[in-house]
Amino acid sequence: MKVLAIDTSSTVATVAIMDDEKLIGEYTINDKMTHSQKLMPIIRDIMKASDLNIDEIDVFGVSKGPGSFTGLRIGIATIKSLAHSVEKDVVGISTLDALAFNIPFSNGIIVPIMDARRERVFTGIYKWESGGLHIIRENMVIEVDELMKILKERPENIIFNGDGTLVYKDKIIKELGDKSIFAPKHANMARASSIAELTMAQAKEGKTESYLTLVPNYLRESQAQRELDKKNCEVDKNE
Amino acid sequence: MKVLAIDTSSTVATVAIMDDEKLIGEYTINDKMTHSQKLMPIIRDIMKASDLNIDEIDVFGVSKGPGSFTGLRIGIATIKSLAHSVEKDVVGISTLDALAFNIPFSNGIIVPIMDARRERVFTGIYKWESGGLHIIRENMVIEVDELMKILKERPENIIFNGDGTLVYKDKIIKELGDKSIFAPKHANMARASSIAELTMAQAKEGKTESYLTLVPNYLRESQAQRELDKKNCEVDKNE
Repeated sequence: MKVLAIDTSSTVATVAIMDDEKLIGEYTINDKMTHSQKLMPIIRDIMKASDLNIDEIDVFGVSKGPGSFTGLRIGIATIKSLAHSVEKDVVGISTLDALAFNIPFSNGIIVPIMDARRERVFTGIYKWESGGLHIIRENMVIEVDELMKILKERPENIIFNGDGTLVYKDKIIKELGDKSIFAPKHANMARASSIAELTMAQAKEGKTESYLTLVPNYLRESQAQRELDKKNCEVDKNE
Repeated sequence: MKVLAIDTSSTVATVAIMDDEKLIGEYTINDKMTHSQKLMPIIRDIMKASDLNIDEIDVFGVSKGPGSFTGLRIGIATIKSLAHSVEKDVVGISTLDALAFNIPFSNGIIVPIMDARRERVFTGIYKWESGGLHIIRENMVIEVDELMKILKERPENIIFNGDGTLVYKDKIIKELGDKSIFAPKHANMARASSIAELTMAQAKEGKTESYLTLVPNYLRESQAQRELDKKNCEVDKNE
């Protein structure tokens, strides 16, 4: 089975191709948020360097969120187009699951954090047990202060990764001290190879879906939706 | 500080660019052993996609071995040329250190194994302690059966990665049973981002060297050298 996977949920554009035996290739660029310019060229380059055609891909994987609204839309639209072009199924993977998967077999709990603006983060709590990654707390959007309160009560070491570490590292160290550990840079950000591996595991259990039905999981409403809701609410009040 | 790092010690060609804050980009191809054709194009592509020129790189990192003789020569010659062109220093990193570094904060010991042909592997024993990677047993070339004897006496779980797992997985499971754990595919093979991170750590301690002095560490003599030695030995005997 060959999987092509992408993640554009943050400033990182990352593409990977994997088969049953190995990671065939991965191309990651974390330069500026220019997915609309860079994503298709890096997909083309890696397919060419791997001597593969798109019709040799069996399943397509993509990070379905949480993350940047625009980033997720570009990633999901791109994977839907590719899957449509060769009539293959897709798998949507939680961005946070993939971040936790960057740090296999680790000791302690893993808390990926992605900046959700306004002092909030997208996060979840994960733990490796018996060689498998387990979800201790489901994906959520939460105020950083609230997350710190939850984590203070955990006895284990806490491994953080994700772009939220670039914003909240000092605060985390202040609140949690020596219990807080930060991932090396190569495991800190989205990697399409983690999306690819989780996609393959799901595909082998038959858990794929049509490119027609895949939708992003924003975990919260977009700014535009919130403003519309607020406006409608005000209209209601005035009526 | 900006680092450009490569690893061509196995069938994988991998290039990464990293700065103090983040992995800027990484490009990995594990298709066929065609480093002489693919390495320079992927370096060019990633520099272009990252909007960087070679004169913006401060230090160059490379896997110095062990590994494929031809692969190491291509990688080291390439990094020397790049460093020479902009008169910057280089750092040579053990291929096995970089493989162990793929699996940060893991529970148990890490044993990267690279196929050294004739039932032997290049290996070492590593352990994460207090957030740092420690070498328990130095890099060596050893018969697989001998390595199994050593590992049977270890009480911890043993995480294996490297291309040796593709050859010896069944044997390892037979000998070590449930104690043996195998890295996910995204952490199984050489990643230039691990070379880059270790290069940066050394450069920050001032441990760089001139491109003029960097040499590979083959850990054993080449087939050609061994045959020459054998021939000389026979000549000696006959004299």
